[in-house]
Amino acid sequence: MDYVNAPGRNHLFVPGPVNVPESVLRAMNRNNEDYRSPAIPAMTKTLLEDVKKIFKTTSGTPFLIPTTGTGAWDSALTNTLSPGDRTISFVIGQFSLLWVDQQQRLGFNVDVVESEWGRGADLDVLASKLAEDTAHTIKAVCIVHNETATGVTNNLAAVRKLLDHYNHPALFLVDGVSSICALDFRMDEWGVDVALTGSQKALSLPTGMGIVCASPKALEASKTAKSVRIFFDWKDYLKFYKMGTYWPYTPSIQLLYGLRAALDLLFEEGLENVFARHNRLATATRLAVEAWGLKNCTQSEEWLSDTVTAVVVPPYIDSAEIVRRGWQRYNLSLGLGLNKVAGKVFRIGHLGNLNELMLKDKLKVLGYSDCNQIILRESRESLPRVYCVKLEIS
Amino acid sequence: MDYVNAPGRNHLFVPGPVNVPESVLRAMNRNNEDYRSPAIPAMTKTLLEDVKKIFKTTSGTPFLIPTTGTGAWDSALTNTLSPGDRTISFVIGQFSLLWVDQQQRLGFNVDVVESEWGRGADLDVLASKLAEDTAHTIKAVCIVHNETATGVTNNLAAVRKLLDHYNHPALFLVDGVSSICALDFRMDEWGVDVALTGSQKALSLPTGMGIVCASPKALEASKTAKSVRIFFDWKDYLKFYKMGTYWPYTPSIQLLYGLRAALDLLFEEGLENVFARHNRLATATRLAVEAWGLKNCTQSEEWLSDTVTAVVVPPYIDSAEIVRRGWQRYNLSLGLGLNKVAGKVFRIGHLGNLNELMLKDKLKVLGYSDCNQIILRESRESLPRVYCVKLEIS
Amino acid sequence: MDYVNAPGRNHLFVPGPVNVPESVLRAMNRNNEDYRSPAIPAMTKTLLEDVKKIFKTTSGTPFLIPTTGTGAWDSALTNTLSPGDRTISFVIGQFSLLWVDQQQRLGFNVDVVESEWGRGADLDVLASKLAEDTAHTIKAVCIVHNETATGVTNNLAAVRKLLDHYNHPALFLVDGVSSICALDFRMDEWGVDVALTGSQKALSLPTGMGIVCASPKALEASKTAKSVRIFFDWKDYLKFYKMGTYWPYTPSIQLLYGLRAALDLLFEEGLENVFARHNRLATATRLAVEAWGLKNCTQSEEWLSDTVTAVVVPPYIDSAEIVRRGWQRYNLSLGLGLNKVAGKVFRIGHLGNLNELMLKDKLKVLGYSDCNQIILRESRESLPRVYCVKLEIS
Amino acid sequence: MDYVNAPGRNHLFVPGPVNVPESVLRAMNRNNEDYRSPAIPAMTKTLLEDVKKIFKTTSGTPFLIPTTGTGAWDSALTNTLSPGDRTISFVIGQFSLLWVDQQQRLGFNVDVVESEWGRGADLDVLASKLAEDTAHTIKAVCIVHNETATGVTNNLAAVRKLLDHYNHPALFLVDGVSSICALDFRMDEWGVDVALTGSQKALSLPTGMGIVCASPKALEASKTAKSVRIFFDWKDYLKFYKMGTYWPYTPSIQLLYGLRAALDLLFEEGLENVFARHNRLATATRLAVEAWGLKNCTQSEEWLSDTVTAVVVPPYIDSAEIVRRGWQRYNLSLGLGLNKVAGKVFRIGHLGNLNELMLKDKLKVLGYSDCNQIILRESRESLPRVYCVKLEIS
Repeated sequence: MDYVNAPGRNHLFVPGPVNVPESVLRAMNRNNEDYRSPAIPAMTKTLLEDVKKIFKTTSGTPFLIPTTGTGAWDSALTNTLSPGDRTISFVIGQFSLLWVDQQQRLGFNVDVVESEWGRGADLDVLASKLAEDTAHTIKAVCIVHNETATGVTNNLAAVRKLLDHYNHPALFLVDGVSSICALDFRMDEWGVDVALTGSQKALSLPTGMGIVCASPKALEASKTAKSVRIFFDWKDYLKFYKMGTYWPYTPSIQLLYGLRAALDLLFEEGLENVFARHNRLATATRLAVEAWGLKNCTQSEEWLSDTVTAVVVPPYIDSAEIVRRGWQRYNLSLGLGLNKVAGKVFRIGHLGNLNELMLKDKLKVLGYSDCNQIILRESRESLPRVYCVKLEIS
Repeated sequence: MDYVNAPGRNHLFVPGPVNVPESVLRAMNRNNEDYRSPAIPAMTKTLLEDVKKIFKTTSGTPFLIPTTGTGAWDSALTNTLSPGDRTISFVIGQFSLLWVDQQQRLGFNVDVVESEWGRGADLDVLASKLAEDTAHTIKAVCIVHNETATGVTNNLAAVRKLLDHYNHPALFLVDGVSSICALDFRMDEWGVDVALTGSQKALSLPTGMGIVCASPKALEASKTAKSVRIFFDWKDYLKFYKMGTYWPYTPSIQLLYGLRAALDLLFEEGLENVFARHNRLATATRLAVEAWGLKNCTQSEEWLSDTVTAVVVPPYIDSAEIVRRGWQRYNLSLGLGLNKVAGKVFRIGHLGNLNELMLKDKLKVLGYSDCNQIILRESRESLPRVYCVKLEIS
Repeated sequence: MDYVNAPGRNHLFVPGPVNVPESVLRAMNRNNEDYRSPAIPAMTKTLLEDVKKIFKTTSGTPFLIPTTGTGAWDSALTNTLSPGDRTISFVIGQFSLLWVDQQQRLGFNVDVVESEWGRGADLDVLASKLAEDTAHTIKAVCIVHNETATGVTNNLAAVRKLLDHYNHPALFLVDGVSSICALDFRMDEWGVDVALTGSQKALSLPTGMGIVCASPKALEASKTAKSVRIFFDWKDYLKFYKMGTYWPYTPSIQLLYGLRAALDLLFEEGLENVFARHNRLATATRLAVEAWGLKNCTQSEEWLSDTVTAVVVPPYIDSAEIVRRGWQRYNLSLGLGLNKVAGKVFRIGHLGNLNELMLKDKLKVLGYSDCNQIILRESRESLPRVYCVKLEIS
Repeated sequence: MDYVNAPGRNHLFVPGPVNVPESVLRAMNRNNEDYRSPAIPAMTKTLLEDVKKIFKTTSGTPFLIPTTGTGAWDSALTNTLSPGDRTISFVIGQFSLLWVDQQQRLGFNVDVVESEWGRGADLDVLASKLAEDTAHTIKAVCIVHNETATGVTNNLAAVRKLLDHYNHPALFLVDGVSSICALDFRMDEWGVDVALTGSQKALSLPTGMGIVCASPKALEASKTAKSVRIFFDWKDYLKFYKMGTYWPYTPSIQLLYGLRAALDLLFEEGLENVFARHNRLATATRLAVEAWGLKNCTQSEEWLSDTVTAVVVPPYIDSAEIVRRGWQRYNLSLGLGLNKVAGKVFRIGHLGNLNELMLKDKLKVLGYSDCNQIILRESRESLPRVYCVKLEIS
């Protein structure tokens, strides 16, 4: 039975796309409009102003691009760097790996710093590279704030501290796809030069808008950066910003109204409350994983992610099978393990438009095996073993 | 904080109105239409044909009335009975009580059979009344299939058996508001003369459509019934049925499309599967209540309801407080105790568009007290006592 | 080809149900909620307060009933009158006729004053009846503000003047179904005792809410009125009003949010602007009818309706055919002629959520015959004759 | 008054984004889903198969890219060409101009063939360039099927004929943004190598999906093309096509369901009927323009566009003022004149989800001046002059 047509609602716990609030769905339930009418630029102006708040920047310039997070990466890199430029980049999981791949395809000279998947970016290596680089050959440090594949959060304040310590002028480029609007992100305080996210993550919108924010230093760099860019060129946006019409090409009217509604919800709850809620739900998830006797993929407390938890399954189990069964039996969508951790972890997304009860149902089903449902098997060869849960009220 | 504006979705577990499937919401998301165009009568024809299936009748005549369950009661009574008519009616909870009140206000001579709330209709009393009534003064037996206030399901087959046993010609009128589309309802097999339900119950639509189905015997009775009725008069519908335009007054276009989508979902899942699912979720609910150490309001297994469970709380607790806290803290909507059981029970609706995970979250929160949340207190005076849950995987 | 599935939108110009504004559709695009939660009564309170403004009353008590206009009639009559009561009632078209029929079925002694269809209520007859009735046997004067079948607006101020002139205590009951929110309606100023409308008319909502407003005198009358009423009994509402929970039975959550949005739109535009817009669009319609060389069914200027225009077609044409072709060829919904004027008139609804361009397209197609489309035929026997339109810019 | 909040609906007649059908809006009114579940790839497979039909290709490979038409251009160019490559490209209006600009920024050696705006691509020049190019230095011929800025449709069959005549191997790249799904487009028959469109044009979806289709020859070219591309690289898609998961990055779930609904509508109407409807509505528009005494920007019948008409206004009038007034007074959205024809033309989009009455209202208002509305002024200095319209039925 295809559960998507099954009774009841789908339980969406992949780390993006995430659940869209009903009020946002309502705001987006509308016909197209002429984006050159007086109404759309007026709304765009408020969006550009307000979207800065989710980056905690006042000096940054935001771009709302009809693309995905992958396109936002492209925008961040091509507008600030030139072929041959040296970048320091960290591979700690599938998404940081893909970003490095982009950098290499763009012809940058990428100095890759790898960590075991489950660990954060190795900042000691960064320190020594910065220390050595008195000639300032390093043009940019590129890092994910939160690695979605492993549930690892990097310490961006520490990166900034190192750059400052060595007085290094490298650009500081951050992928905030699975962090911004869920984890505390401080663009100005941390001196981030380009930060980016995608609409379908903690903003809780449909996919389709890449949001990129550039510091004055990044904008300056874009004037001389030689990477070829057309669709992603900031210059085209800046030209239309000046004219007050804002759009070099057609935006999605529905996503603009949706962004308005999503920002309103975030500000109404209060960004700090949003972060606290993410921490609360993440803590509950981690306690549940512990209670199930399973391991968190994240190897040290310092990197624990409040937006996604990658759960390591016993070696005799294929984590993809857990994901498959959750979907078939419970209309539950969990994240697969990707690349190096394929089959080894499944991922619980706990970001965006979530509350306690939405999360609890999911935690319950994974450890709980009632009736004739078996989630985990002892080994591929042995007979299925039923995991039971006793409720003890004390 | 008003949880309705809080992050995440509302968890709706009152025994009606229930969760509307997304596909039904989509079907209803439309402009008005002319109900006299060729399109609406054509659709209405399929609705009238298909709606019979949820009553399990082939000989019945259905009426789709722009009203609520209360209006459907009115329709059932006024079309078949006359002031002064003797009815046998059972009071076993708040909703059967209100129906008796209607009957009395309509000037019927109501022979009320009361049971303790938590028990089903007393069929022994019915048997003796039928036995005595050789003169056939009893014009109708009126009974709820499922009492929504206490979670009690009456045995309708047994009622029919008694009527047949005593060869009694009384009309058999049934309130199926919280049963039809969730519990197995067999209009033809049980010889029910009028059955009724409301759109917002197990059909999982918004409120606004009362669905009444009349047997040939009930239609015959309507020709001589002297109760005054205008809006609810079946005659007006039958006139338009004959003309093929179907509507004596304006229907809700949106509810018609919604009903089409709701019936399609039910038939796609299969009515017997729908009933099995309700039984599965109800069983889980009852097990959870037991695990919490609480009592089901339903006093005997024979009356257990697969659509609603009324949970008795300890005497030192106000059940309304549990409902209030669920709403405030968890965006969880539970049913209050009504009338005689106000403050004594809270109700968990498990009917309509539900699946396992939607239900589990709710059961969890009621017995589980993590962090600093306390749902049940030992006594009003004592310090709060934390109920803990240990998960044991064996 | 069934035009409802045809490209482009349906053009809805029946005099109800009318076009629902997109913002109202958005507001209604939502799941069910518990109507006993704190949120719904809080919203209901604002609705009951604000809905008085559309009646222009401060002393009236409104009832939001899950029913249609027909049910609202029932509510108005049964709560204020008793079987045998004498009413004066005017038949000037199909809807006033149906209301009289209700009154007769309720056992009132209806003194029917008929006018030729196309003319307004005969107030001279009313005057003489009031003059004669020194014994005050007339308990109520029942009148439609606007007869939807013929496009005739009655002069309610004149009715009140007569009642005052003869110092007559009769209740003044008004059907405002196709007037309220479109025509200036002044409940308090005109001393109307019960006024009513339906959600799918000028409020521009889906069908399903009958809105009835009772003066203090009407409420007083309801205490002694002997007509049997159950579902429509105001008493049940008043009991729940006092308790602050407002609902004796389940309301449509979606219609409540829709009403909130609809009222907000009306107040934002300003009621007087709404009336002026209706007058402007009605005037344009009447000019177009004149330009087509056709006759308005309304026989005198004093009765011209700003919400619906009934257009008389030449005798050799069946107006139903015009409606049928409009629907088939243009996805255009016009109103049929009803009863006495069936085949003789078609109706253009110009009420509710409309603007200039929405109306103009409709007017154009009726008189304009481009390409191979023929709307009007010379005679039933002759060959079709093409009506051409020349545009002359001068 | 801001008409967007004004009563009634917005009348959208820009040449994109166009009106979204209600059934498509309904299909898109949904929560996010996991795009890695079994459901989304299964649907994607049908989309990729069916989308070929709108290009009339069986051998092409389609790409559904989360971008706009501008991004689709980028995709077409960077995947098939290398810096320094010679292209022949035609500038006949603002959009072909922008595409040429892209080509120049990508470092191609663009051989620009300009026409007066209002005229089509100069194929005589193409012929002579092809004739001269015996060395096959021309790598691609780039042309818009329909220039949206001027309402000019180019003859693609003639381009193919020339390429064949000269036996020239150049790639044939076509911008079909304002043609595909509205004008007859024959990718295979015309030997087009890359064709592209955007979701918000004749497909009548929201903005956000660029649809690009590559011939086997184009796919072959992509293997050696040296233009740098990351986000737009076909290679990434092809890799996931082979895996059967289809998506190298997150698609918009809502747009996928919307595309399914939009294609279903097109196939239900029949593509040839869709083209005929566009021709019918375009013809009506052109007749109206003629009747107003105004000139079509398109200078010869051979280039008349069935999707957009650019109307030349008298020299003393600013066309932007007409657009502005249409919006303010009538909630009517018309297209502005762009670049060279700014202030000189306004544009009527008549593509996508339109029917006769939707169009007529728009035509009416532009020439018709009733009441106190004046659309066109004699001159900037003179007093406003009222343009009257007489309806003559003959």
